[in-house]
Amino acid sequence: MTSHYNPEPSHRVKRIAERAAYDHATVHAILDAGYVCHIGFIADGKPVVIPMTYWRDGGYVYFHAAAKGRFADACAQSDVCLTVTHFDGLVLGHSAFNHSFNYRSVVLHGRAEMVADHAAKTAAMQAFVERTVPGRWPLLRPIRDSEIRAITLLRLKLEQVSAKVRDGWPDEESVAPDWPVWVGVLPAATVFGAPVADPVRNRAEVPEHVAQHRGLDGAKRA
Amino acid sequence: MTSHYNPEPSHRVKRIAERAAYDHATVHAILDAGYVCHIGFIADGKPVVIPMTYWRDGGYVYFHAAAKGRFADACAQSDVCLTVTHFDGLVLGHSAFNHSFNYRSVVLHGRAEMVADHAAKTAAMQAFVERTVPGRWPLLRPIRDSEIRAITLLRLKLEQVSAKVRDGWPDEESVAPDWPVWVGVLPAATVFGAPVADPVRNRAEVPEHVAQHRGLDGAKRA
Repeated sequence: MTSHYNPEPSHRVKRIAERAAYDHATVHAILDAGYVCHIGFIADGKPVVIPMTYWRDGGYVYFHAAAKGRFADACAQSDVCLTVTHFDGLVLGHSAFNHSFNYRSVVLHGRAEMVADHAAKTAAMQAFVERTVPGRWPLLRPIRDSEIRAITLLRLKLEQVSAKVRDGWPDEESVAPDWPVWVGVLPAATVFGAPVADPVRNRAEVPEHVAQHRGLDGAKRA
Repeated sequence: MTSHYNPEPSHRVKRIAERAAYDHATVHAILDAGYVCHIGFIADGKPVVIPMTYWRDGGYVYFHAAAKGRFADACAQSDVCLTVTHFDGLVLGHSAFNHSFNYRSVVLHGRAEMVADHAAKTAAMQAFVERTVPGRWPLLRPIRDSEIRAITLLRLKLEQVSAKVRDGWPDEESVAPDWPVWVGVLPAATVFGAPVADPVRNRAEVPEHVAQHRGLDGAKRA
């Protein structure tokens, strides 16, 4: 298991204000590097946060849901908040107060829009698979109409969106800058291990698209 | 960069219902394996989800906040939802419909309680540092009273909590079980790379507690 993490933090914290004219490149890069988002919605007047898979296509972030349930209901009735965070490392400073963590995050607000069109749903599932494991879609048992119908596909427009990146060193130490403790960064990354075949159901050798898979973030950092 | 991930998924999805008498061991293990949670709160009637560091101590999950701002306000006025998710891998099935991801998550609801006592706050910061990078606290420049005062420390009791674990193989394929596509799991884990010293501020050799750091999840899986 190898990592493609490039541990060269620079001393800066970028805060990209929530605005319509956001930094597209930063937001897209953060969204495109992850597999799991956290979606917040309100149920019975209280906030609920659940992990979900997602993908970006153009100016939208897509996710799917079970057709019934409080999550689908909440998405139909009120705004949601979709947050993607990559944990990039622990930042170790001189004092406990100067510790932090490096991360990249995107926070997206809005009312989810349901995608009901059959062809659009099929195309979206293809985009999802090809984005997650490139090269896999053409090899799959073709998706059935009943399966497409069973999917509730939702999307959020990238309008009310903000990004935040912390990739720096520890904060300045004004009290005792020569205190003899090691200060720096312990970089972290999400990496993939060797593929593990299903011992009962698998009928195939490991194909190129699986053997070569390094992850979205890995691919971007390689 | 090495991983301690043990890629032996079993074919099961555990759903631990939200209840007071939850499975302590499962919830604690998931919480203790992570660095970043996502906290959902309501601001101006809409859900907001932000990434935060956290730690567990006994029957509470702790986090800290800037003293002012909509997050601290929301925590004082209404319930929050704190979710921790570990992404454990991509699950590749026969059809797009049978793809999934493996994960462990905990969802915790409740009203946050502020910890105001100075000694309790100091002890909590020590617990946080020692939990995150064991062995580091005694080497740090001692935390100052003014730093403790600047921290808003909050905690949530582990009462309304649920855990969910998916660590299995792809779902059963009923349409074409002999379809010749590779099916299995691409395991993923968060791993740490070699420590990177602050080129300007560091005055020390890499100490044992940094060199030996393998991460919470890694330590548990080694």
